[in-house]
Amino acid sequence: MVSKEQLIQDLEGMFKPERVLKSELQRYCYTYDSSFVSQQTEYYPDVVVCLECTEDVSRLMKYAWENEVPVTPRGAGSGQTGGSVAINGGIVLDLSGWNSIVEIDDANMQVIVRPGIVHADLNDALSPYGLFFPPDPGSSKMATVGGMVCNNASGLRAVKYGATFQYVLGLEVVLPNGEVMKTGGLKSKALKSVSGIDLTRLYCGSEGTLGVITEIRLKVLPKPQSRGIMLALFEKLEDSALTVLDVFKAGLIPSGIEILDDGGIRCANKFKPDLNIPEMEAAIFFEINGSKAAVMEEGAQVKAIAEKRASSVEWATDADRMAKLWQGRAVIGAASARFMEGKTRIFAGEDVCFPISRVPEALRAIRNIGAEYEIPVVIYGHIGDGNMHTAPIMDPLNPDEVERTHKVAEAIHRLALEMGGSTTGEHGVGFARVPYMQEEHGIALDVMWSIKKAIDSKLIMNPGKIWTLGRG
Amino acid sequence: MVSKEQLIQDLEGMFKPERVLKSELQRYCYTYDSSFVSQQTEYYPDVVVCLECTEDVSRLMKYAWENEVPVTPRGAGSGQTGGSVAINGGIVLDLSGWNSIVEIDDANMQVIVRPGIVHADLNDALSPYGLFFPPDPGSSKMATVGGMVCNNASGLRAVKYGATFQYVLGLEVVLPNGEVMKTGGLKSKALKSVSGIDLTRLYCGSEGTLGVITEIRLKVLPKPQSRGIMLALFEKLEDSALTVLDVFKAGLIPSGIEILDDGGIRCANKFKPDLNIPEMEAAIFFEINGSKAAVMEEGAQVKAIAEKRASSVEWATDADRMAKLWQGRAVIGAASARFMEGKTRIFAGEDVCFPISRVPEALRAIRNIGAEYEIPVVIYGHIGDGNMHTAPIMDPLNPDEVERTHKVAEAIHRLALEMGGSTTGEHGVGFARVPYMQEEHGIALDVMWSIKKAIDSKLIMNPGKIWTLGRG
Repeated sequence: MVSKEQLIQDLEGMFKPERVLKSELQRYCYTYDSSFVSQQTEYYPDVVVCLECTEDVSRLMKYAWENEVPVTPRGAGSGQTGGSVAINGGIVLDLSGWNSIVEIDDANMQVIVRPGIVHADLNDALSPYGLFFPPDPGSSKMATVGGMVCNNASGLRAVKYGATFQYVLGLEVVLPNGEVMKTGGLKSKALKSVSGIDLTRLYCGSEGTLGVITEIRLKVLPKPQSRGIMLALFEKLEDSALTVLDVFKAGLIPSGIEILDDGGIRCANKFKPDLNIPEMEAAIFFEINGSKAAVMEEGAQVKAIAEKRASSVEWATDADRMAKLWQGRAVIGAASARFMEGKTRIFAGEDVCFPISRVPEALRAIRNIGAEYEIPVVIYGHIGDGNMHTAPIMDPLNPDEVERTHKVAEAIHRLALEMGGSTTGEHGVGFARVPYMQEEHGIALDVMWSIKKAIDSKLIMNPGKIWTLGRG
Repeated sequence: MVSKEQLIQDLEGMFKPERVLKSELQRYCYTYDSSFVSQQTEYYPDVVVCLECTEDVSRLMKYAWENEVPVTPRGAGSGQTGGSVAINGGIVLDLSGWNSIVEIDDANMQVIVRPGIVHADLNDALSPYGLFFPPDPGSSKMATVGGMVCNNASGLRAVKYGATFQYVLGLEVVLPNGEVMKTGGLKSKALKSVSGIDLTRLYCGSEGTLGVITEIRLKVLPKPQSRGIMLALFEKLEDSALTVLDVFKAGLIPSGIEILDDGGIRCANKFKPDLNIPEMEAAIFFEINGSKAAVMEEGAQVKAIAEKRASSVEWATDADRMAKLWQGRAVIGAASARFMEGKTRIFAGEDVCFPISRVPEALRAIRNIGAEYEIPVVIYGHIGDGNMHTAPIMDPLNPDEVERTHKVAEAIHRLALEMGGSTTGEHGVGFARVPYMQEEHGIALDVMWSIKKAIDSKLIMNPGKIWTLGRG
């Protein structure tokens, strides 16, 4: 590897000066993402390069390959596992400025974008065409689509629409050695293809460890005609999960099924007192979309099912009332951050996934973990697919609380594995979940590594993520 | 590699005699699948082994690995690209007898099966639970779920429900060296996971080139409450495709959108004269499912849209009339095989995929290709995702027709690539599409190959598929 000075000098010779960030202050902004782990140590990259064209990315990668310099691609930095943090130094490749839409091809139900486009901006651009890109991360207004592909993001509507990988039709990828590859067919605009090993899907969720994604071809769907929102309140946590299963068994698939536990309800109420949600063990929010008649009928059916176990159920299809009902879910991210004076909500062990049938048991166990370490854990999330957000509330400046919070996160990850779940339903591995990979995957982790080595034999792409730094 | 005699002797020492098939007659049944290419040459395996437990598959693979014997896994042999034919000899591993359901876990919306289970049998077993596995290949009563995963099959309902890969949550895979790997988490029953490189999806569509799939964990969905069928007839092909796009633009996603061109209509009518479908340029079949009110409303909307361009539209929700309307589509496979005296329908160039917007143009071009080589080509298929079945009708005993048919298939594949489509929308590469892979994928084909070598360094798994035999 070249010296840091040489590296910066070389890059300044290759790219315009404003694309190469080298001051400590500039680099400081890249030492962390939204994860708790990345805030514990300052992981400075040696240099940051901001690029917005494939040829430049290819030149950068050729240089990095020849000189064996680590490269960590980065979008908005809204990730919660340290995935875009350069824990081994080298270059951070900032793609967040490369946010153009190359083509909205409504006649073929697809769109081609550059990696830096923000999720909400893409959907705003699609809206006039009556189209939308269904995966909906809570961080829609921050998260880039490139980041969503790298993490295989999903979010609020996965229960009906699934995760990002289902919509990715093809990618342009700059390989670690700088070669430019197209997946899904060199010239393809097809909506389906089973031609060869599915590299498109291989890159979904690969977290920048196999190359740099520089263009994304996405399948988009017609926007549903109508929607409705229901809020059901349950005295017992178990009843909320049973209701979700009953809805599925009736042949219904709502477009969203979200839960707040009692801590979540208290959080929301404290943040926005006029919400005044009754403080029971669980609030479930259903979103139902489709044609107008479908929404009316399915809403009535879900309501009847929920009423069997819920203390109260409200169903709304007018815009104001829907917005009001949904607020409880909408504010929870912000609310959890400001729940207790002098404390904040951090992201650690925050997106574990459980088999649906074990969600109530899991939620009780998570509270017990919080109680054991005296760290309150607010719970909310995508109960429709068992993907829970467990939000520890703590003081990051108090070393004792930091230590206990790490223990809470550790215990939550272990719980997910013991209960037949996953350590990460949607945020990815980054370096936060590296310690659990062997237990979660066994020899599959070795096979993943063999693929990594096959594509990136010099191990320059985003080192220390998914696998330990020293692996191999 | 060991001699054929030694190979058989060794395998007979390892497994019960009835599991090892060695006679010429027994092996003959494995020389072909449903593809035209596999019927041109008799590809005899040296031996066939029929296994039904993971440990046996692992022992077989360890033996094959040590002795560098090619292994070609096979399900029902209903594939249409030669994928399960041992073109390089060695062992065919017949998994079709291993058809058990390990567990229907309705509380977690998933099912665990062995690879040999037939698609229709799985759905029959799921039905009492109110669940179904949505991908629906035309060959539902033959195709095994293991084969569907290996090919990433889709079929009639992909327009709404997508392809097999969207439902595969985890796999047990016997690696080429005999090690047993679990993908998707060692003990997972989670419905979502983004933990590490997505090996589950890597194996979907890998056509037995990366290992033997011995267990499959599938996400299943609640069965829709209701359905309806519509038949719309169009004087002009172009109007049928425009109607499909208008339906999408109205925010509607039917569960199936199928086309018959005029050749297809003639075929169906000849096979079943009481069908008596008016012989226009295109018939489109829409299936709409969901809650009862949704089906009624969406049916009415699709009907209104279709009526703008169609000569006639009929919409039915009663079971008898639906069955009657759907018959035209249902019989087309059989009908095309018996369209002309002394000729049959063969599978070659038969599942190309086009960008939806170019389907009308593509269909006209395909007819022209048929006319040029004087081989009638009947067209039907999944117009909702641009995936067309182009069925050459020919006499396989006439060498001149065989030669012309190969040219037709070649021209259809090239057309798909020229028009921004894919050579295969759902049947896979096998060895039928190997000649087009370089043109379709460019350097991505090399990356696929590097993954192949990383997982199967001795190149024993299903050699000659996806890539040429001599590659590397």
